[in-house]
Amino acid sequence: MKSVYEEEIFQQPDVIRNVVITKSAQIASLAINILKKPPKFIMIAARGTSDNAAIYAKYLFTGINRIPVGLAMPSLFTLYQQKPILEEGLVIGISQSGQTPDVHAVLEEANRQGVPTISITNTEESPLASLADFNIIVDAGEERSVAASKTYTSQLTVIAMLSAFLSRDDKSIDDLQRLANYVDEALSQMHVTKLISSRLKEKDHIAIVGRGFNYCTTHEIALKIKELSYMIAQSYSAADFRHGPIAMLEPGFPVVAIAVKGKALTDMESMIKSIQWTDADLEIMTNAPWLMKITKNPILLPEEMPEWLSPIVSTIPGQMLALNLSLAKGIDPDKPRGLKKVTLTY
Amino acid sequence: MKSVYEEEIFQQPDVIRNVVITKSAQIASLAINILKKPPKFIMIAARGTSDNAAIYAKYLFTGINRIPVGLAMPSLFTLYQQKPILEEGLVIGISQSGQTPDVHAVLEEANRQGVPTISITNTEESPLASLADFNIIVDAGEERSVAASKTYTSQLTVIAMLSAFLSRDDKSIDDLQRLANYVDEALSQMHVTKLISSRLKEKDHIAIVGRGFNYCTTHEIALKIKELSYMIAQSYSAADFRHGPIAMLEPGFPVVAIAVKGKALTDMESMIKSIQWTDADLEIMTNAPWLMKITKNPILLPEEMPEWLSPIVSTIPGQMLALNLSLAKGIDPDKPRGLKKVTLTY
Repeated sequence: MKSVYEEEIFQQPDVIRNVVITKSAQIASLAINILKKPPKFIMIAARGTSDNAAIYAKYLFTGINRIPVGLAMPSLFTLYQQKPILEEGLVIGISQSGQTPDVHAVLEEANRQGVPTISITNTEESPLASLADFNIIVDAGEERSVAASKTYTSQLTVIAMLSAFLSRDDKSIDDLQRLANYVDEALSQMHVTKLISSRLKEKDHIAIVGRGFNYCTTHEIALKIKELSYMIAQSYSAADFRHGPIAMLEPGFPVVAIAVKGKALTDMESMIKSIQWTDADLEIMTNAPWLMKITKNPILLPEEMPEWLSPIVSTIPGQMLALNLSLAKGIDPDKPRGLKKVTLTY
Repeated sequence: MKSVYEEEIFQQPDVIRNVVITKSAQIASLAINILKKPPKFIMIAARGTSDNAAIYAKYLFTGINRIPVGLAMPSLFTLYQQKPILEEGLVIGISQSGQTPDVHAVLEEANRQGVPTISITNTEESPLASLADFNIIVDAGEERSVAASKTYTSQLTVIAMLSAFLSRDDKSIDDLQRLANYVDEALSQMHVTKLISSRLKEKDHIAIVGRGFNYCTTHEIALKIKELSYMIAQSYSAADFRHGPIAMLEPGFPVVAIAVKGKALTDMESMIKSIQWTDADLEIMTNAPWLMKITKNPILLPEEMPEWLSPIVSTIPGQMLALNLSLAKGIDPDKPRGLKKVTLTY
């Protein structure tokens, strides 16, 4: 019997297709509103998987829309008294359930200071949605699996849509129309992730390395692997990896490198060479033809996928890797040890 | 024979005492300048150990000085074309060597946009220092060890000084006068870290958990342990740990909890209870009397140390733990595999 987690992974093309179609008008009008008085900076509050969506938002809003973005440290809003002055900023809260108290605290403070707020949730009737001036519901349908999949990729999708409408770039809006197809294509890599998982099932650790827009993907894949297979999974940008952690690699150490065509590819290629040098057990997730040939079981990503949308697509094989590592280790992916669907942090 | 790394660890009280005395006038005048036109936000660029100093800066400047802070993603300045609009911001670059090209790129862009810049380096004659409007030299003396120790704590010290002068709070400025003494006191924990290391020497993984101001400390201790003992060390805020990674703990999994008296203590106490519940191998670094009693070899931190300065102090036993884990595993801490003192990332 398929796990709920697996079922939800395979719902993603439909969910994303639906989000792009049904949310465009609302997000376009939100973008027009924001552009009337562009914020000097954006602060984003989130936890867990949603925090990885926040990292994606940080790259898009800064790298494409030219707005400096800071990730809020919610504890500064709950544990400590002094709240930052948010004047001329925009505050965004991201939460699947919309029920994380410390994320609320950030939006509450923004409300006190009269700063505009947006929430991104999967549930209309949530405390977070009620706190925001503008609420985007990702409409992923109920997520029954403890480990998030479709709520994450649909969060990323609405973030990508907001970025595209803010930049008023027809090419980007066009890219979004094909996003669900790329996600569909990525689902074809199920068997490869199964092969890799069966080979890695005795390992208790793994590193995920990426760069640029896919920095969030390294975090999200590592989080899923930790949650579902209990492996010690670590995520790194290629640049940070060089500044210390690469020392930890020894022969046979499993490393997954995410190398998608685009601006960050050259750096990832040189990172891959350094990893090969250590005799680590390298797995590659890529859409660059020449990189598909250097490992036995490459995870193939859609060739035409644009770099800025690639984190939504490259997460999919990562979810399947986490699923299959979990199954290969004899763990029930629907019952991760010590976790609940809604985690309340203060 | 003592390693260079150990020698430099023990130089820290003198270095910090010296920084507090000799840099006060310069940093006070910088603070006055900044306060003439307070920035709407601060963007900080850094890599490796300096990036952990940036996290400390983020907590102080936001939590005490009420200025929103974002950590720059240097790749957005080097790999991607669109640069963020930094108007009304302040940009800070932190680098021991002052030679990391992608950190320079952030300051160069700030210069192009006419936004004020500060650099924090250990070398006067560095490219980074020459790019900044205002340069703070931490004067830690030459750091010969590949793994940074005194340059990190002295970076944190100048950041604490800048925060104190920006807040014009006499109590904080007073606290700084005693900082070197607390650091000195922390050095007394060498033997405990040796005991713990000899017990953990067969382990290949470890997690470091903290919260609030000590979030940076968890990162810095994990980085040192990775660099010097090649253990798979992971760092977490207690809040993020609950949102997934706690699933990975099994009986005997080594976890170091940093629990210092202050606003984040209650949350850390509850985190410690959850960790005990998993039968993980818990080590505690604390200055709270009741927490000193629940493990066999507690690492004791100075009782009177104020929370906001505690990251400078609690890093010290972490450095000694990394040193002793390295020695216990038969590794030369002065020759970490695959690392150089200056790492150039683009």
